[in-house]
Amino acid sequence: MARHIAEPLERLINNFSRLSGVGRKGATRMAYQILSMDEKEAKEFADAIMDVHTKIKRCPICQNYTDKEICGICSSTNRDKSIICIVENPRDVSTFEKTGEYKGTYHVLHGLISPMDGITAEQLTVKELLGRLSDDTVKEVIMATSPTIEGEATALYLSRLIKPMGIKVTRLAYGLPVGASLEYADEVTLYRALEGRREI
Amino acid sequence: MARHIAEPLERLINNFSRLSGVGRKGATRMAYQILSMDEKEAKEFADAIMDVHTKIKRCPICQNYTDKEICGICSSTNRDKSIICIVENPRDVSTFEKTGEYKGTYHVLHGLISPMDGITAEQLTVKELLGRLSDDTVKEVIMATSPTIEGEATALYLSRLIKPMGIKVTRLAYGLPVGASLEYADEVTLYRALEGRREI
Repeated sequence: MARHIAEPLERLINNFSRLSGVGRKGATRMAYQILSMDEKEAKEFADAIMDVHTKIKRCPICQNYTDKEICGICSSTNRDKSIICIVENPRDVSTFEKTGEYKGTYHVLHGLISPMDGITAEQLTVKELLGRLSDDTVKEVIMATSPTIEGEATALYLSRLIKPMGIKVTRLAYGLPVGASLEYADEVTLYRALEGRREI
Repeated sequence: MARHIAEPLERLINNFSRLSGVGRKGATRMAYQILSMDEKEAKEFADAIMDVHTKIKRCPICQNYTDKEICGICSSTNRDKSIICIVENPRDVSTFEKTGEYKGTYHVLHGLISPMDGITAEQLTVKELLGRLSDDTVKEVIMATSPTIEGEATALYLSRLIKPMGIKVTRLAYGLPVGASLEYADEVTLYRALEGRREI
């Protein structure tokens, strides 16, 4: 049977399919959209892909992605350097920043400890984190990893390393997600919400 | 407040957001994935985007996208050149080819007539279609545009042009989608299904 999709198009579809959360149908739709763009737009897209690789590196302090020598948060004089919020990945930093409430700094682990996937502390930015804690600047470390098995294990592992240094280690509160109905809460969340109840 | 997403990353997110069906969240996820690829993979992705523009053009016969002089279907000796299936866009050709049942050729309109959006027959590949019908090769033209207002209008417009040439014009059957429950069928579809009923 005659091949009905041109090879370069097929190749672009395969590239889009490689992104998680993008199925074959979505990838096909996206590839056809690229084809219907004018060449300038397509070039801008292709350049943007290359640019994130050539222009973005990790901040030497917090390990978040940045196109500066030191990222905007670490270099800001308005941020409280005595608190570090530990997150799994750079996306989590964006999520926290959107709340506009947190004024400390971050440390991006770039993953979670997961023996099942063969990911150990050495592959994460734990060494860089401990380096930041070596002087007396930092008073509190907030564990903001996800409440999953890997997230909990990583938080536990790190708190055991950090607590002996005399630094306060805290964990994000568990409880009901705001706006969600009680009937959709699972038992574990409900139990944690009950356990963490506060006087009003 | 400190900017927390590096500019090149922001730019890539904007490029992904421009694709229809991709929201800000999905675009952000995709951009971070590109960043976590190694440079070779990212280059392959960027090249694939440029390649569809430099290597793919329209087949001079059916107007489908191809990287050959003439597309695989039009150049195949196994395809029945006496039947042309008229579709809105190249994706529809792929959809038909997947059925593996159709052995004729195609003609891609690259749009539908839509006075509301200012799209007239001149902007579509109608002239090229009429050119293909000028000798006696083609015996049947199948209107395979979507059963939407624009799809119907385009099919009607074309059939009025083609019928006087003594060529048989057919339309895809309307009816219940296979596998769908009757209770979800809208009245118009149900009426059309009843109208088009066949003896079994």
